[in-house]
Amino acid sequence: MRFGERLTKAVAEHGPLCVGIDPHPGLLASWGLTQDAAGLERFALTCVEAFGGRVALVKPQAAFFEAHGSRGVAVLERVIADLRDSGTLVLVDAKRGDIGSTMAAYAAAYLTEGSPLAGDAVTASPFLGFGSLDPAVEAASASGRGIFVLALTSNPEGASVQRAVGADGRSVAQSIVDSAARANAGAQPFGDVGLVVGATVDDLGVDLSDLHGYVLAPGFGAQGATVGDLRALFGPDLRGVLPTSSRDVLKHGPETAKLRSAVDAVRASLAV
Amino acid sequence: MRFGERLTKAVAEHGPLCVGIDPHPGLLASWGLTQDAAGLERFALTCVEAFGGRVALVKPQAAFFEAHGSRGVAVLERVIADLRDSGTLVLVDAKRGDIGSTMAAYAAAYLTEGSPLAGDAVTASPFLGFGSLDPAVEAASASGRGIFVLALTSNPEGASVQRAVGADGRSVAQSIVDSAARANAGAQPFGDVGLVVGATVDDLGVDLSDLHGYVLAPGFGAQGATVGDLRALFGPDLRGVLPTSSRDVLKHGPETAKLRSAVDAVRASLAV
Repeated sequence: MRFGERLTKAVAEHGPLCVGIDPHPGLLASWGLTQDAAGLERFALTCVEAFGGRVALVKPQAAFFEAHGSRGVAVLERVIADLRDSGTLVLVDAKRGDIGSTMAAYAAAYLTEGSPLAGDAVTASPFLGFGSLDPAVEAASASGRGIFVLALTSNPEGASVQRAVGADGRSVAQSIVDSAARANAGAQPFGDVGLVVGATVDDLGVDLSDLHGYVLAPGFGAQGATVGDLRALFGPDLRGVLPTSSRDVLKHGPETAKLRSAVDAVRASLAV
Repeated sequence: MRFGERLTKAVAEHGPLCVGIDPHPGLLASWGLTQDAAGLERFALTCVEAFGGRVALVKPQAAFFEAHGSRGVAVLERVIADLRDSGTLVLVDAKRGDIGSTMAAYAAAYLTEGSPLAGDAVTASPFLGFGSLDPAVEAASASGRGIFVLALTSNPEGASVQRAVGADGRSVAQSIVDSAARANAGAQPFGDVGLVVGATVDDLGVDLSDLHGYVLAPGFGAQGATVGDLRALFGPDLRGVLPTSSRDVLKHGPETAKLRSAVDAVRASLAV
């Protein structure tokens, strides 16, 4: 089954919430864990236990695993395997981007059956042009996986790149939206190429109406966006939006029961 | 000693050539190696033996290590450690980019003393804005390391982002050049923030004259650019350019002596 279909099924069952696993030093400390690969593993496996089977999508942030070197990356592999075993879709937030055979190597790592780092989808960065990501789009399609491409982010520095205007008069962000829409053409309801669009941007400034893809919206909760904000921001395109919450849930750990309650509360707030 | 000074010393001793370690499947096959972490390790350690102590900078490409999962990343750690032991500067080509504490985690991984993935410098991707890379710029400066930020690449798809024009009338690429120049202000001759500028772009289209930083120029050799092209492209800014060759050298393996001869030949072609 294609990724777009698998995610649609998961969202129908669990709602659109994506929960992040962000084991940053402050959270390891507040959970009483050591700042090493052992502490990281304890943190991450607690998250797997708390979130697996309860949400549509879980998003481990690769940076926090790489900060512990190859031993940390081995923990990420275990997180991916355990979540997939629980039937939960895994989006590896790695924001990879390169060209040619190098991009193909990232696709081999994150989007190819049998690779220990391959979840169900990966985030990608299009600074080298959306077209440079083609090897990943193709690998995703070939293996029933997905890709979420950065389009428009909520950090103030992002506009200098994402809102710049190309020779054809479109913003960089809009041209990425349009390229993703082309990749998703014909998919019902949603294809395999999603986007990342910051939930706290004041003014969406891109037209998502033809995307036919999912939109990951980080910045929900701790970083400030409310359900009302999402509705105001995305309007009729809200249907494909996956609000993403990390710190707002994770701060309730390390007890599994409290993490689950926090997830349930965020899910409920989204159902309003 | 700051990275800019260390690199200047290395270039004075060995010339400006940067050699890439790109263990892609085709090269593993042509070297008679297995497509697994053991083949990867054999490939990478042969490169370390051939290049260590002979060039200013060696650039392992992270993607080809990640394609073998955490075991591949462990090989990358060994490559970094062994090259640094040989006195050769290591640029980890990972093109990382994110915001806030996530970017800080990448900086902890690639730019902080004691991290097994920290070479002497790392490549970074500014799709989230040059300012989003501040945690990496700061970590680099604090640990005598460097960062090479993507600015303008030679692949045809890159222009859709990099040549888009911002509200202030500058292209995305130029605004990245200018931000890097600000970060390097006052450094003599070169600061710690370098750029990646594709050597095969037809028309440079950015003004590098105030950069005071090194410019990594991939695309030299196998991908088409000659020394004459570099001179025509960079003009008076050629002094800080680091031509980067990977496949053109690596295709001469697996014999160490032949790899060394290939490096010497490329070095000699640059001295013309």
